[in-house]
Amino acid sequence: MRIAIIDESGLRATILEEGLREAGFDDIEVVLAQGAFVARLERMAPDVVLMNLGNPSRDSLEEMLAVSRALARPIAMFVDQSDDAMIGAAIDAGVSAYVVDGLRKERVKPILDLAIRRFHAFSKLQADLAEARTELAERKTIDRAKAILMQSRKLGEAEAYALLRSTAMNQGRRIAEVADALITAAGLLGGKE
Amino acid sequence: MRIAIIDESGLRATILEEGLREAGFDDIEVVLAQGAFVARLERMAPDVVLMNLGNPSRDSLEEMLAVSRALARPIAMFVDQSDDAMIGAAIDAGVSAYVVDGLRKERVKPILDLAIRRFHAFSKLQADLAEARTELAERKTIDRAKAILMQSRKLGEAEAYALLRSTAMNQGRRIAEVADALITAAGLLGGKE
Repeated sequence: MRIAIIDESGLRATILEEGLREAGFDDIEVVLAQGAFVARLERMAPDVVLMNLGNPSRDSLEEMLAVSRALARPIAMFVDQSDDAMIGAAIDAGVSAYVVDGLRKERVKPILDLAIRRFHAFSKLQADLAEARTELAERKTIDRAKAILMQSRKLGEAEAYALLRSTAMNQGRRIAEVADALITAAGLLGGKE
Repeated sequence: MRIAIIDESGLRATILEEGLREAGFDDIEVVLAQGAFVARLERMAPDVVLMNLGNPSRDSLEEMLAVSRALARPIAMFVDQSDDAMIGAAIDAGVSAYVVDGLRKERVKPILDLAIRRFHAFSKLQADLAEARTELAERKTIDRAKAILMQSRKLGEAEAYALLRSTAMNQGRRIAEVADALITAAGLLGGKE
C-alpha cells in the first residue's frame, strides 16, 4: 500500500511516518504542501493520503479539500484546531478521518484503517446511488421508446421491447442508447410521442 | 441537545462529561452499560450517543453495535484498543466517530461535531438511495400495469396512465398501489400480462 503524507506543518509528519513504519508500511512518501505538490501527488498515485495541516487558514483548507476531491482516495486529515465549518467542509469533501489535535504514533495505524473502511463504506453507498439513478433514467428512456413503438407500429409491449433489443444488438449499442435515439427521432419527425 | 454517555469502562466518562459541560452542553446523562440500559436509553431519546467502551470483548462490542443500529442517532465510540475487524464492524453498523485510545476533554466537542456531521452526510446518502430504489420499483410496477391496460383495453400510453391515476384519486390510494393491485388481478384472472 502506497501512502502519501502531505505535510504543511512539519511537526507531526515524523510521528505519522514512524507510526506507519512501525505498523509495517514502507511505501511512504512525504510531500511538502507547496509548489506543484498536487501534480506530484497525482504522479505518485497513492492508495491513501494523510494530510498534516497544523492550523490551516480557510484558504489553505479549501485548497486541500479540492485536492482530496480530485484524488478520490481515503484521506485522513490532521489539524491542530478546528471549528464546525471546517469539519463540515472536510466531511462534505469526502475526508474519511478527521483528527483534531494530539497524536501518538500508536494511533496512526488505527486511524488509517478507519479512513480506509469509511471511504469504502461511503463509496459503496455512492456507487449504489449512482447505479440506481442510472437504472431509473434508462428505464424511463426505454419505456418511453417502447410506448412510441407500441403506438406507432401497433405492437405489444414484449414485441416493442424485443425490437429495441434486436436493434441494439445489431448495432452493437446499448438498449438505452437505441431508445434515446428513437425518442429524438420521433420528436424530429413529429411522430406521436 | 440531549447527550447520552454509555459507560462501560468508567475511566473516561469523567473526561467526556467535563469536556461536554465546558463546551456548553448541560443535558447529559451517564448510563451504565449494564442491566436494562437499552430500554433506559430508548426512553431518554438522546440526540447523540457517546459510547465509552474501554477494551470491549467481541460480544460486548456486538451488543453495543446492535444498540447503535437500533438508535439511528449519531454515535461516537471510544475504545482503548481495536483491530481491523472491530473498526469494520463499527463503521458498518453506522458508528459516526470511532476514537481509539487517548482523550483530552478539549477534544470531546470536535469529536461530537464530527459524529453529527458524518451521521447527517451518511443518512442523506442512504435516504437518497432508498428514494431512488423506491422510485425505480414503483416505476416498474406502474409501467407493467400501464402495459396491461394498453393491451387489454387498447388504450394509448397517456390514456392508460390517466386511467390509473383517476382510479387512484377516486380510491384515495397511491398510483403505485393501484398498479400493484392491477398486476395481481391480471395474474389471477389469467389476463394477458
